Amino acid sequence: MSDAVIISSRIRLARNLRDYPFPNRMTDNERQEVAQKVKDLMCNGDFCGYKFLAVSMEDLSEIERVSMVERNLISMEFASPQKGKLLITTEDEKISIMVGEEDHLRIQVILKSFDIEKAYEIADKLDTELDKYLHFAFDKRLGFLTQCPTNLGTGMRASVMMHLPALRESRTVSRIANNLSKLGLIIRGAYGEDSDPAGDMYQISNQVTLGISEKSAIDNLKSITEQLVNSELKTREKMMESVEYQDKIGRSYGILITARIISYKEAQKLLSNLRTGICDGIIDSVELHTVDKLMQMIKPANIMKIKGRKLDFSERDKVRAELIREELKFR
Amino acid sequence: MSDAVIISSRIRLARNLRDYPFPNRMTDNERQEVAQKVKDLMCNGDFCGYKFLAVSMEDLSEIERVSMVERNLISMEFASPQKGKLLITTEDEKISIMVGEEDHLRIQVILKSFDIEKAYEIADKLDTELDKYLHFAFDKRLGFLTQCPTNLGTGMRASVMMHLPALRESRTVSRIANNLSKLGLIIRGAYGEDSDPAGDMYQISNQVTLGISEKSAIDNLKSITEQLVNSELKTREKMMESVEYQDKIGRSYGILITARIISYKEAQKLLSNLRTGICDGIIDSVELHTVDKLMQMIKPANIMKIKGRKLDFSERDKVRAELIREELKFR
Repeated sequence: MSDAVIISSRIRLARNLRDYPFPNRMTDNERQEVAQKVKDLMCNGDFCGYKFLAVSMEDLSEIERVSMVERNLISMEFASPQKGKLLITTEDEKISIMVGEEDHLRIQVILKSFDIEKAYEIADKLDTELDKYLHFAFDKRLGFLTQCPTNLGTGMRASVMMHLPALRESRTVSRIANNLSKLGLIIRGAYGEDSDPAGDMYQISNQVTLGISEKSAIDNLKSITEQLVNSELKTREKMMESVEYQDKIGRSYGILITARIISYKEAQKLLSNLRTGICDGIIDSVELHTVDKLMQMIKPANIMKIKGRKLDFSERDKVRAELIREELKFR
Repeated sequence: MSDAVIISSRIRLARNLRDYPFPNRMTDNERQEVAQKVKDLMCNGDFCGYKFLAVSMEDLSEIERVSMVERNLISMEFASPQKGKLLITTEDEKISIMVGEEDHLRIQVILKSFDIEKAYEIADKLDTELDKYLHFAFDKRLGFLTQCPTNLGTGMRASVMMHLPALRESRTVSRIANNLSKLGLIIRGAYGEDSDPAGDMYQISNQVTLGISEKSAIDNLKSITEQLVNSELKTREKMMESVEYQDKIGRSYGILITARIISYKEAQKLLSNLRTGICDGIIDSVELHTVDKLMQMIKPANIMKIKGRKLDFSERDKVRAELIREELKFR
């Protein structure tokens, strides 16, 4: 049942090489040296049982870089064509390492399921293996050393992406948000404004990295996430009984399969409704993963990446409508 | 091409028996006598090659009576359960005779095509045959005598129901309307407000019955109708080029096949868009006659007639959405 609510689980580890200054103090040469070191280590044959590909930010077009941000592969800050900014990923993009972001390495594992432990296990294994060769900066008292003190300690950010249309509608999310900070957790809209998060997508993650073990942080996150899932599902069940709600879901689907022009904002809203409708059994002709795929696909840079060229607003709105109709296989 | 614009052609003849006073001066007995006379004449075996059925207004429920108004079979004034109000129709309802409306007989022929002459031919044949037995009041100078002087002469109202979404959108209809009166014709919204006619349906008909032959009146109407058809089709062609227009059509279809609640007004608007979309080739999975059938079916009393009981607003909106989904065969 959890895939009705959970989009993905993510672990991110911030790591720095002890033999180099933090990135903001590095020379261009040092930056490139570190990038080369990591690339040589990971991209010659298998590493840790995975095959990795490396790409320099400076070799990518703006569309490709922004598309990577949209796919949650890299941060906005990383998306500039600077020397020594290297992205290393597996082909399925489950594992990705930004080299030369705020820290020397940002190791990220994203799983499209509710499995934070599994994601951590993979990240931890990589971390251990990388440490053997790269020698990460570690202090017995402070833990892993990071450029920004808020990451000191575990250097870990664990997060879960959740689809919470019912809890948003019932204003439960904003009520919960205040209590979460006491548990060292934070919830926020994954895209767009916090008050009206695009596609009803939320990200919940740990705030504290110092004085808490990885396991405790993950356990906290997991337990709160489970509560949110249950609460969201219960609220949906109640909503589902109303014809007005079924009507909203039905029409959202109807518009998605027939529109010829659709904005990003409208598409996200309607896809969010469609996602709920599939989980509730109101719509049975579309698979959940198709909706999740579309939610990524319809982002502005991703659309331009698919078409291989710059598109203005109105062109994007047309292509977006086409892509949706195609994916939903309506004639 | 004309069925892209023409919904139906209609002839109505007002006739009165010379041996009886006009309906507003009749006693109840005389009213019933005339009704019986016409019924005996027309409903015993074939009449004029047609099989006719008769029903008294007083034997019908309110839903059935209003449903007949919605099907353009009877007038609102006729839809009260008064003695001597008799409706005689063929089973397909192409031919109908109101006995005891404003005139003793109102003979009506409706054809779902652009064929006013054919409709007149049928009405004329019936008129001639009825006259043999009923002896209609006729004055050499004034023509057929009718209760209201505006019908004196031919007693004929010829009309065409047209779907003019593009001419309404481009505000051409209101411009044309003023010029038509000079030709003895009138155009008006078939349902709802004249300024925003429901479903973009218009009725154009002759105004003048005195001093003009049936043929001339029909020729005038026909020629103006043809001009309107051409003008509507040309305007549509231009509109069709815009993606915004295609988007509107597409979404209308999408909503119709998926809505769970829909008001009469919204349904008419969307069906009107769908009708145009079919004619323009944007929608190819729905037949034109299905849309025309639905446009009738979704009217409030027709819906209650189908369900066989009174329904409040919100129940009707649900049933309407169901009927539309069923007819459009979307899963």
